Amino acid sequence: MAREKNYVSEAVMRRMPKYYRYLTDMEANGMQRISSNELSQRMGLTASQIRQDFNCFGGFGQQGYGYNVCELRREIHKILGLTNDNNFIVIGAGNLGQALANYTGFEKEGFLIKGLFDINPRLIGLSIRGIPVYDIDKLESFIPENQIHMAAICTPKEKAQNVADQAINAGVKGIWNFAAVDIATPPDVIVENVHLSDSLYTLSFRMSD
Amino acid sequence: MAREKNYVSEAVMRRMPKYYRYLTDMEANGMQRISSNELSQRMGLTASQIRQDFNCFGGFGQQGYGYNVCELRREIHKILGLTNDNNFIVIGAGNLGQALANYTGFEKEGFLIKGLFDINPRLIGLSIRGIPVYDIDKLESFIPENQIHMAAICTPKEKAQNVADQAINAGVKGIWNFAAVDIATPPDVIVENVHLSDSLYTLSFRMSD
Repeated sequence: MAREKNYVSEAVMRRMPKYYRYLTDMEANGMQRISSNELSQRMGLTASQIRQDFNCFGGFGQQGYGYNVCELRREIHKILGLTNDNNFIVIGAGNLGQALANYTGFEKEGFLIKGLFDINPRLIGLSIRGIPVYDIDKLESFIPENQIHMAAICTPKEKAQNVADQAINAGVKGIWNFAAVDIATPPDVIVENVHLSDSLYTLSFRMSD
Repeated sequence: MAREKNYVSEAVMRRMPKYYRYLTDMEANGMQRISSNELSQRMGLTASQIRQDFNCFGGFGQQGYGYNVCELRREIHKILGLTNDNNFIVIGAGNLGQALANYTGFEKEGFLIKGLFDINPRLIGLSIRGIPVYDIDKLESFIPENQIHMAAICTPKEKAQNVADQAINAGVKGIWNFAAVDIATPPDVIVENVHLSDSLYTLSFRMSD
């Protein structure tokens, strides 16, 4: 199934987590089955769009029955790679890094934060909700020893490329970048950006007359 | 200039803050002028793409000269609505709400957080970097009294729709939504989502073999 991933557009890739989120809520509410029309209304997509999206992965659902909520959620769970080992680390233990460590929502899907890293001596040695803050010097040994493949970067933008390089050298293959700068990586490393200021400016742009 | 906004695609709208970010850094580094080729290399876009994007707003730059960094930055500053009054509030003063309040980067562009709102009596009355945490009961009077048009929502997902409704009733026209749920709004209210879990799942998806 994952083989088809390379042929999946950016837009479909961005919608899959949204399907997963809606299906998780429906399952939690005891819903067993949903028609493609109702799913499309809830999600603000057309039924044909949903069929096209699911066809990228071989298609789900049966004519006249709709979708089995639990099965569809399980399929998307697999597609998203949520069955993998998804431990990660957070580099930069400031406000945002600590907010990520304090948030329990990621753990429900198996994304465990195994450590925070910082250069600030006042933070090193602390623990945030039981997650230790280590000296950044430990980064390059910690990553292979703990088989970490993902790192969230919550440093000031001036430090981001440097810590990303260190993490990638030590084996990280995915960067979740919160720094307000774009990070250059080798082709086999995936970067997912959360540029908060860009998002705020987009909101401002769309609100301006 | 802003009139053209309605004809601007979502993709262009998402790239404008990125141009702004790059130009701000270039200006800070003392760069006065940039060729369209160099800009395209730095940003990972084609020169023709950049020209097309800028043509949505009447076009900038001169054949053979390239772009004047300071002027271009100023134009995009206007386009993004950053010349407007961009005070906002944060609803939900937990870890993420506090991280937003502690971050000083938004202020540089005139996005001042005027207050945080929560239901938790242990948070109400505190101040985060000088920004007071108010009882959520104060929300509906605070918004018109302080001419607030934007609200960041950092509550648990179960509360998000309800606080958004309250904020919109009181006059908010833009919602910056961090809750892991989609919020329904009247057509004249803009929602910009930062769905952190969706972003993390997208990263996981793109990393999976």
